[in-house]
Amino acid sequence: MDVLSLLCLLIGFSSNSCASDHAGGKSWEATVEEISGYAEEAQKIIDLAVYGDARNRSYEKLAKFTDTVGHRLSGSRNLEHAIEYMYNALTKDGLDNVHLEPVKIPHWVRGKESAVILRPRNHPLAILGLGSSVGTPREGIKAEVLVVKSFDELKQRASEAEGRIVVYNQPFVSYGETVKYRSSGAAEAAKVGAVASLIRSVTPFSINSPHTGWQDYEEGVPRIPTACITVEDAQLMARMAERGQKIVIHLTMGAQNLPDADSFNTVAEITGSKYPEQVVLISGHLDSWDVGQGAMDDGGGVAISWEALSLLKDLGLRPKRTVRAVLWSAEEPGGVGALQYYQRHKENISNINLVMESDLGTFRPRGIQFSGKAQAQKIMGEVMKLLKPINATKLEGSAEGTDIQMWMDGGVPGASLLNDNSKYFWFHHTHGDTITVQDPEEMSLCSAVWAVVSYVIADLEEMLPR
Amino acid sequence: MDVLSLLCLLIGFSSNSCASDHAGGKSWEATVEEISGYAEEAQKIIDLAVYGDARNRSYEKLAKFTDTVGHRLSGSRNLEHAIEYMYNALTKDGLDNVHLEPVKIPHWVRGKESAVILRPRNHPLAILGLGSSVGTPREGIKAEVLVVKSFDELKQRASEAEGRIVVYNQPFVSYGETVKYRSSGAAEAAKVGAVASLIRSVTPFSINSPHTGWQDYEEGVPRIPTACITVEDAQLMARMAERGQKIVIHLTMGAQNLPDADSFNTVAEITGSKYPEQVVLISGHLDSWDVGQGAMDDGGGVAISWEALSLLKDLGLRPKRTVRAVLWSAEEPGGVGALQYYQRHKENISNINLVMESDLGTFRPRGIQFSGKAQAQKIMGEVMKLLKPINATKLEGSAEGTDIQMWMDGGVPGASLLNDNSKYFWFHHTHGDTITVQDPEEMSLCSAVWAVVSYVIADLEEMLPR
Repeated sequence: MDVLSLLCLLIGFSSNSCASDHAGGKSWEATVEEISGYAEEAQKIIDLAVYGDARNRSYEKLAKFTDTVGHRLSGSRNLEHAIEYMYNALTKDGLDNVHLEPVKIPHWVRGKESAVILRPRNHPLAILGLGSSVGTPREGIKAEVLVVKSFDELKQRASEAEGRIVVYNQPFVSYGETVKYRSSGAAEAAKVGAVASLIRSVTPFSINSPHTGWQDYEEGVPRIPTACITVEDAQLMARMAERGQKIVIHLTMGAQNLPDADSFNTVAEITGSKYPEQVVLISGHLDSWDVGQGAMDDGGGVAISWEALSLLKDLGLRPKRTVRAVLWSAEEPGGVGALQYYQRHKENISNINLVMESDLGTFRPRGIQFSGKAQAQKIMGEVMKLLKPINATKLEGSAEGTDIQMWMDGGVPGASLLNDNSKYFWFHHTHGDTITVQDPEEMSLCSAVWAVVSYVIADLEEMLPR
Repeated sequence: MDVLSLLCLLIGFSSNSCASDHAGGKSWEATVEEISGYAEEAQKIIDLAVYGDARNRSYEKLAKFTDTVGHRLSGSRNLEHAIEYMYNALTKDGLDNVHLEPVKIPHWVRGKESAVILRPRNHPLAILGLGSSVGTPREGIKAEVLVVKSFDELKQRASEAEGRIVVYNQPFVSYGETVKYRSSGAAEAAKVGAVASLIRSVTPFSINSPHTGWQDYEEGVPRIPTACITVEDAQLMARMAERGQKIVIHLTMGAQNLPDADSFNTVAEITGSKYPEQVVLISGHLDSWDVGQGAMDDGGGVAISWEALSLLKDLGLRPKRTVRAVLWSAEEPGGVGALQYYQRHKENISNINLVMESDLGTFRPRGIQFSGKAQAQKIMGEVMKLLKPINATKLEGSAEGTDIQMWMDGGVPGASLLNDNSKYFWFHHTHGDTITVQDPEEMSLCSAVWAVVSYVIADLEEMLPR
């Protein structure tokens, strides 16, 4: 999940308190009855996913995939390998309409990178360069450090920044709030004459673990190299500076921005029996950062979207409308693959019934986050009751997902997975984002939520009101 | 804290339920009254440490020390620097009898080290070589992997081990139980013909964080290189092996065992007013591993022992007996400095009233762990009541501390700090053992516990019964 995708967490769901009757004139009682009629099929999905032959299957799919492919940075050979792997696996599963849709995606490469404090004592820093950062000259940059705790402090001390490496030791408030230092730290530092910027990793918890992520330069502002350092090292330098010690760092980064690469969004379906052109879209993104395995961000979302189709297929459940899984390419650089998908398909927006993405963890599910008008919310509330057997009935606003935002902005109802993800940002964009953080049972539960919601919405007599 | 120090956690305190009268014939009621008479002085210590001028002081001492010196491996220049730093700081504080006592300590150096999975796909491993490990040949060792989850499995599959790198993927049960794989993994692997061993880090939690530590070769068994890998990578290889994949690793370690180095235990006191030759010994160890800052293991124990003396001095509290802080050298290789201290001073064992060490965290204190006869335990129970104002009154058996074990084995009562250290082994012997894991307020509370217990025991009319 990237910075853009988090911003929507800050935008509250605007509930329409003036609920109208369900579109089509059907009485609410009839709708409630229609939805409750899915109890048996929902239970079948849950039984298969959680207790039956498919128990632990989404975890096993994910483990084999990530162990085989590894991490999958936008533009990398690994991402190509991942798409090939998924295309073959979805085809082998006998899903409908498995295909690839071409997109152009950013191609940033990390190269070799290192940083070391030379003064007041020699101390190597664990760093991770940020996506889109330029590299340093081959010999690196040696410069004195200016430690600040905020953009405000940087502005107040602008006269001290010339020729320095700015180190941000911003406190962690929340990802949505604090990520601006990672996104804009380099540009803000460059504006006051800094030669590089190092940003405290955006996390509430660290074991000397640096976090990478995308960052944005500004037009007309010099592009300086930028990387994340660990919480520990940012605090170390803040204490040294507080004691009046001069800090000197040698930073070397071999990062490069290469021409955009060819890639694909990967698509598979259970094609609808009655209105195949009408679609419930479920999704996760296939690309990841180039550290760890991208098992959590967003292998989990990919795995439960794939598994939701498999569950329906295994049970012979073909809803009236199509359930389509899209595994996005290049979410991390800012929803790049998804935007091209939107542009290609937006003329059919009236046929997109619901867009779903899981990109904030596949830990123990509690329900879904939903964005849509009041009447759609009421309907979704009834659907969630079908998940009572696994205690995942919560309906909260608002849905989150960089890759589905354009559709939601266009009025399509959206849903994302609500799960116990309090540790998500401990592992996010680190070497620690591996299958080890995932739990087989929790992933089976997530798969059940994903399958029940997408199937029932796709099979209702009518599309969700918007 | 090293492996030996943990073993005693497994040996329960053998309580003597047949409590005799307090030695010296004094009535129990009189003893209780004597101890409760310290309430005012205990409160003064607490007020100074937690709310007064000394608030946060042990944390600040530790932060400045670890930021300045860094980690302090046995035999390293950093440890020499640390001893010099402490000698100067204790002297400057005006403490009594500040001096250094010479010891000979192990000198193992890590050198450059790396490991990478070559097959089934290229994947670099985060590793930390283990203390006392030999290095590899300069070109490293390339070999196929045998993954096992236990010594039993290794024995069952002994015929597969020849020429392989044994990877232990043992589950974490507890540190005391699981650390045997780190201590003996190389020797056990070598017995069945392995050329190296890689051990899953001994921790319940990881962010791709390898843990180092000491390991022991066996006489007559080939000495093969050995390192810890992360939980994530151990599990990765176990899954690959389970799938029948051949795994090949290239391991390179530049580790060397050099001749023993000269070092010192660092000593400072509040000399007793009435029986200066009788001693309550408080302690932590000054050496650490060569990663992180050794702030937790065992900077915290050092800092609160130093601070306890400072608190007594600031308050003008000079007990009847001496309170002596000893900052041990070379605990991590197995209590090496402390053993030489014991041998040098054991003839005075009858004058050692109580030995205390803090080496399992200086997080929120709950009381102390205590080893001693029933009557001593009763007395200590009364002393702990003085810590009611900070809710640290618990008395649990048994005391822990590699550096004080010899004294306890000789019959001297022993105490260690009981604190909320559930995350201790998350950071233990990793790059993440930095001052970031410490909390100023919690350290102030620990300092108060340390000062109150040592002062009161040192000032009672009589020594603790043994």
